[in-house]
Amino acid sequence: MLYIGIDVGGTSAKAGVVDENGNILHKDSCPTGIERGHEPVIHDIAQLALRVLDGSGHALGEVCSVGIGIPGIQDPRTGRVPFCTNLGWHDVPLVELMQAEIDKPVYVTNDATAAGLAESIAGVSAGTRNSVFVTLGTGVGGGVIIDGKVFLGPHGVATEIGHMITVAGGELCTCGNRGCWERYASASAIIREGRRLAASQPGSALARAVDGRLEAIEARTVIDLARAGDSQCTEIFDNYVRHLCVGLVNLINLYDPEVIALGGGVSHAGAFLLDKVNEELPKLVFYKAMPRARVELAKLGNDAGIIGAAMLGRREG
Amino acid sequence: MLYIGIDVGGTSAKAGVVDENGNILHKDSCPTGIERGHEPVIHDIAQLALRVLDGSGHALGEVCSVGIGIPGIQDPRTGRVPFCTNLGWHDVPLVELMQAEIDKPVYVTNDATAAGLAESIAGVSAGTRNSVFVTLGTGVGGGVIIDGKVFLGPHGVATEIGHMITVAGGELCTCGNRGCWERYASASAIIREGRRLAASQPGSALARAVDGRLEAIEARTVIDLARAGDSQCTEIFDNYVRHLCVGLVNLINLYDPEVIALGGGVSHAGAFLLDKVNEELPKLVFYKAMPRARVELAKLGNDAGIIGAAMLGRREG
Repeated sequence: MLYIGIDVGGTSAKAGVVDENGNILHKDSCPTGIERGHEPVIHDIAQLALRVLDGSGHALGEVCSVGIGIPGIQDPRTGRVPFCTNLGWHDVPLVELMQAEIDKPVYVTNDATAAGLAESIAGVSAGTRNSVFVTLGTGVGGGVIIDGKVFLGPHGVATEIGHMITVAGGELCTCGNRGCWERYASASAIIREGRRLAASQPGSALARAVDGRLEAIEARTVIDLARAGDSQCTEIFDNYVRHLCVGLVNLINLYDPEVIALGGGVSHAGAFLLDKVNEELPKLVFYKAMPRARVELAKLGNDAGIIGAAMLGRREG
Repeated sequence: MLYIGIDVGGTSAKAGVVDENGNILHKDSCPTGIERGHEPVIHDIAQLALRVLDGSGHALGEVCSVGIGIPGIQDPRTGRVPFCTNLGWHDVPLVELMQAEIDKPVYVTNDATAAGLAESIAGVSAGTRNSVFVTLGTGVGGGVIIDGKVFLGPHGVATEIGHMITVAGGELCTCGNRGCWERYASASAIIREGRRLAASQPGSALARAVDGRLEAIEARTVIDLARAGDSQCTEIFDNYVRHLCVGLVNLINLYDPEVIALGGGVSHAGAFLLDKVNEELPKLVFYKAMPRARVELAKLGNDAGIIGAAMLGRREG
């Protein structure tokens, strides 16, 4: 059987036809156009899905289910999307509207959860039963797999690992709390600290690298300078890694996964990131003599959202 | 069928005969005497278990299994207890030694995990499939039930919720890290802050309540004065509740349980604690419009360890 996976982001939506093993047979994308409201968006992604299926050379009869990853959550009681800031959605009956377009079982989950499922089936955590995927992007998202299944909790809210508070009283978060992990472990954290440095020290290598234009500082700018040996950017990145590891060790102490897969923008730092994590993390681990999660780089990149959304049907259907 | 549960603490060991529903039919205790090393201790608790069984009027043939709760963990690979600081144990083959005394299946788990299982079967979280038990004592321990089963993780280390870091860079913990939740949410945290207050302000109500003897300050001393309206002790306790809620909201964001049961010394503050938690926690919850865990006081008290240890066999056997 085949599965359709759709990854709906604020800018574009991607869809793919995926086989039983998590391989994408064919994929395509379209602009999301969220300013139009949810109904045309859902119509468009349904059409995208059907177009991708057509392009794959397969028929709807071969499709088992449709899975959708969104930057939000579904309320398991109602099957509706209560709110989804990045899409501007509020109380949207996504499953119902999608099924009106494609008469198949429809599953909805958080995009990071989908990516976590994908990595556990066809990515770096394949072969494990317990894994956590952590996306280090604008925010920090997470997908938790326990005993081979997506773990969302009975109310569907067990996905907010980025809003785990690791620095009580710390940086103000978009959620209103202070000290959420994502304020320290996201790409945004590196950018914030980089801009603070460049603003206070116009002669720093970082400020010079962007000709003093603070808004041009990206996480990559800081990481590249750290990699090149600049001591101030190294300090920012090392401090970032320390905070990243605080959250990672919390995930170990609470979920005890076999693998923690790092994805998202900052993970593109690759071995430079991973080596530092593997140096810092052991210092924080509670049971130092016991085996514990290994930290790896996610493998599926942008395809993870499509694959994971598609695989929701394989696991749950 | 019947189950024997044994709760082994640093000072005393308790054993009980427990029925299928988590009712204790008969129980007794003995000093642990850890200074003698693990072999006589295990012999004594086996004898205690057999004596309790005898006292219950039942025969060994009616017993399904023996469960043991310890202030440590069992390595799921080896079935041995790798280390257990409070008992002075190191690499102890507990199951093997117990089975040499009582020829039944033997299960071992962390004492807080056992208490969590007990609360989920016969206590405040009975009827739920997902719950977290948090013991607020000298440290902070936890027992996590997911989908009706004890959750330990594949390496058996997913029990250290007290060592979740909530204040990175904060108070030094016994584990070597800084800012572990238990440094802020344990009875010890209240004692520490109370002693700091009394030391710096000899004229404070707290200092006067103990005639200046700092070592006489217990968590209860501070809580009682807060309850009586003393502003300085209220400040300590309110700050304690804020830190407690930081960890509780992390548990919600990661485990999304139906119930969080609070046990241990501080939970004896009862409604005075719970009311403050229920005022503070909603401010920190991420999905404010979604249902989420209710926080309750644990019900089984000191019996939880016996009941939960006994029930290990019911669930896993």
